[in-house]
Amino acid sequence: MKRSFIREILEVIGSDTVSFAGGLPDETLFPMEMIQKAADVVLRDPKSLQYSRSGGIISLREKLASYYTGMGLETKAENILITTGAQQALDLISRAYFRFGTTVEAPAYLGALNAFGANGCPMYTATLDNHQLNLKTFEHHFAVTKRAYIMCDFQNPTGISYPIEHRESLGNMASRYDGIIVEDGAYSELFFEERMPPMALFAPHHSLHVGSFSKTLAPGLRLGWIRGDEHLLQPILALKERSDLHTSSLSQLLADQFWESGMFGKHLRNVRRTYQNKCDILANELTAQLSDFHFTKPKGGMFIYGSFPQEVDAKELALACLKNGAVFVPCGEFYHGAPTS
Amino acid sequence: MKRSFIREILEVIGSDTVSFAGGLPDETLFPMEMIQKAADVVLRDPKSLQYSRSGGIISLREKLASYYTGMGLETKAENILITTGAQQALDLISRAYFRFGTTVEAPAYLGALNAFGANGCPMYTATLDNHQLNLKTFEHHFAVTKRAYIMCDFQNPTGISYPIEHRESLGNMASRYDGIIVEDGAYSELFFEERMPPMALFAPHHSLHVGSFSKTLAPGLRLGWIRGDEHLLQPILALKERSDLHTSSLSQLLADQFWESGMFGKHLRNVRRTYQNKCDILANELTAQLSDFHFTKPKGGMFIYGSFPQEVDAKELALACLKNGAVFVPCGEFYHGAPTS
Repeated sequence: MKRSFIREILEVIGSDTVSFAGGLPDETLFPMEMIQKAADVVLRDPKSLQYSRSGGIISLREKLASYYTGMGLETKAENILITTGAQQALDLISRAYFRFGTTVEAPAYLGALNAFGANGCPMYTATLDNHQLNLKTFEHHFAVTKRAYIMCDFQNPTGISYPIEHRESLGNMASRYDGIIVEDGAYSELFFEERMPPMALFAPHHSLHVGSFSKTLAPGLRLGWIRGDEHLLQPILALKERSDLHTSSLSQLLADQFWESGMFGKHLRNVRRTYQNKCDILANELTAQLSDFHFTKPKGGMFIYGSFPQEVDAKELALACLKNGAVFVPCGEFYHGAPTS
Repeated sequence: MKRSFIREILEVIGSDTVSFAGGLPDETLFPMEMIQKAADVVLRDPKSLQYSRSGGIISLREKLASYYTGMGLETKAENILITTGAQQALDLISRAYFRFGTTVEAPAYLGALNAFGANGCPMYTATLDNHQLNLKTFEHHFAVTKRAYIMCDFQNPTGISYPIEHRESLGNMASRYDGIIVEDGAYSELFFEERMPPMALFAPHHSLHVGSFSKTLAPGLRLGWIRGDEHLLQPILALKERSDLHTSSLSQLLADQFWESGMFGKHLRNVRRTYQNKCDILANELTAQLSDFHFTKPKGGMFIYGSFPQEVDAKELALACLKNGAVFVPCGEFYHGAPTS
């Protein structure tokens, strides 16, 4: 089994390489002081270093439940399962539900494709053409797989957002085929204009919504979650327990304490503004300096995806860039079944 | 898939229940002040909250490498893979190596049996009779599986320690059959008298040694590791990356910083002394109050295992105890293939 191009690249590049590869959050955004304060509080109680429940610490699950309820998706603590990052959510979900196959986007988040692939899950692709998911192909596959993995907000890698009608159509499809659509909301909170309703809103009982603290708070905590019906979470919980017993108690309590402080909202506004500025700068520079590079400016998230009008071997270009001190991920990496060597 | 009896029990019992179930470390042993100090240092650098390498943070791997080298098992940082607790080590190892089957002890650590079972690994058992592994049965199975999982030190659940001749025999067997023996050292540092050489010492290139900070430092950090040849770790690393990208950067740096402080040795001596006292008290009380309960006092670790001369349904007894405010784990739970309902 090959390792991920992105993670291998991230591990070998020096600090003088300019990296456009991987969704590495800006460290200057980490609320270090607030986390230090949270650690001061949390580490007064030895419970912070003790074993805890496999499903996650209740107070954090309650906060996440309110977050969903607040956006119109009624949710209780029992509907939240804390995971060791969103990546573990994808690993566990695919082991519990994708064994007989799943429909995925093309291109799609590489970490998801790799997890599903490692777990032997057959994948059927629906392309993202002209900045939209091909719903017809999607339905063609979903009718059979009854399982799908999508990222509606600022998709990794394309940056596109699903229009609301598509979210509704997909939600209806999930219910109609009595299936499960897994929606990855890793970037959902990084909107530049407005928060879009999740697909899950249109299929509350036929969806698993995956969330992450990695892009909003800090990835090093390895903290994510899954939102779904309790009976859908049950087989995932059994696997979670077998995979790592539970997610770091300390990480959970730090996030919980930070949230408790009431500063999350302000922090998030700052995070969004910063990434919007970065996006503006990169988009402007790309337009100014690479006039034949075509891309659509995203409305949130971390990624700009594009192409050249002429035939360009993205991999060769990536390697040439690497030699010159810059790195990006060639598009081929994001396609299921694409050669990855 | 059923959940683990132990973890389900641990989650439902109230604080007034006296629990003899599960290897729950004594919270009063957690070095809270030292960890707070470590957090103060570590959280000055945003790297503590950033993504990090899938294999683990180098300085921690180097320390673990020295630990093994110090006991005569030459080890470099590349021979260490950090995991999200020893439980993840077992999950990943079984996914990478046990697909076609493994030899296991009977009885064995329930979390291992559950992980291997969830990953569809066929298991072949060698019994622990009269406080020793049945080497003949072991070899019979190992000759076919070429894979095995054992716990030589203060085994969970029996508390037995493998005699040094058995460790040597097993090491030789691992090499002779060109197989891999996975040795779980979760309790190895909790010796009351002396540290025994790991089985891995007799099969440095045909073993994977699994370690954990859960019993020596704090389980809530979810921090474990695997020691083995780099080429044996490679497929595990690829799965690790797909499972949760990497283990919490913060947890790793806290352990690293605590180790750096030079207090680990003193801390461990205190931990060992405390568990030895607990063991003495429990053993004395068992002898005094349950005179027909037969057990051998362990020389380390956390568990006392025994039986009654007459036929006793351990499960019924466990449930009766539970009603009266005490809980222990009935032996049947620790046998592969035993009914667990």
